[in-house]
Amino acid sequence: MYGLISKLKAEPGQREALMAILLQGTRAMPGCIHYIIGRDTQDERTLWVVETWDSPQAHRSSLALPEVVEAMTRGKPLIAAIEQRVETEPLETTSCS
Amino acid sequence: MYGLISKLKAEPGQREALMAILLQGTRAMPGCIHYIIGRDTQDERTLWVVETWDSPQAHRSSLALPEVVEAMTRGKPLIAAIEQRVETEPLETTSCS
Repeated sequence: MYGLISKLKAEPGQREALMAILLQGTRAMPGCIHYIIGRDTQDERTLWVVETWDSPQAHRSSLALPEVVEAMTRGKPLIAAIEQRVETEPLETTSCS
Repeated sequence: MYGLISKLKAEPGQREALMAILLQGTRAMPGCIHYIIGRDTQDERTLWVVETWDSPQAHRSSLALPEVVEAMTRGKPLIAAIEQRVETEPLETTSCS
């Protein structure tokens, strides 16, 4: 298992547009287990993306998918900064309900 | 939807024990959608917990569950610091595969 937690700061007023682009571009990625996009409740420009993948390779391969390439191209101008990016090794057993 | 992202620093040598306690205590929590525990790959004492819930109320109610109370009691001495704790509003549509 491979995980990523990213804190993105959108350009002013662009958070919703950026989230929509990320959501659209990440619907069918082989080996992706979770791709959770959330608004930071304390900062109107900040969003968090939590990803879990079968493997680092699955994540790396996703970066070449046409939908992902397109989302990155469209989303990049809306990102002011990647303020945090953490790699994790998630536990296999993670569901809670 | 309600989300929490927490960065915990375990006491030296206690990260695995802490993760096991967290995992055991969070298996059957009503309203919990995700509870993802991951090792930070850059710091051997750091772990991340990503939670998504139906609502803030569901999260709050979970804190009174016997299993959760027990896990918090057992886990607390193994936590050196809560270094980060972020509230999020996750998007409803989050799956990627």
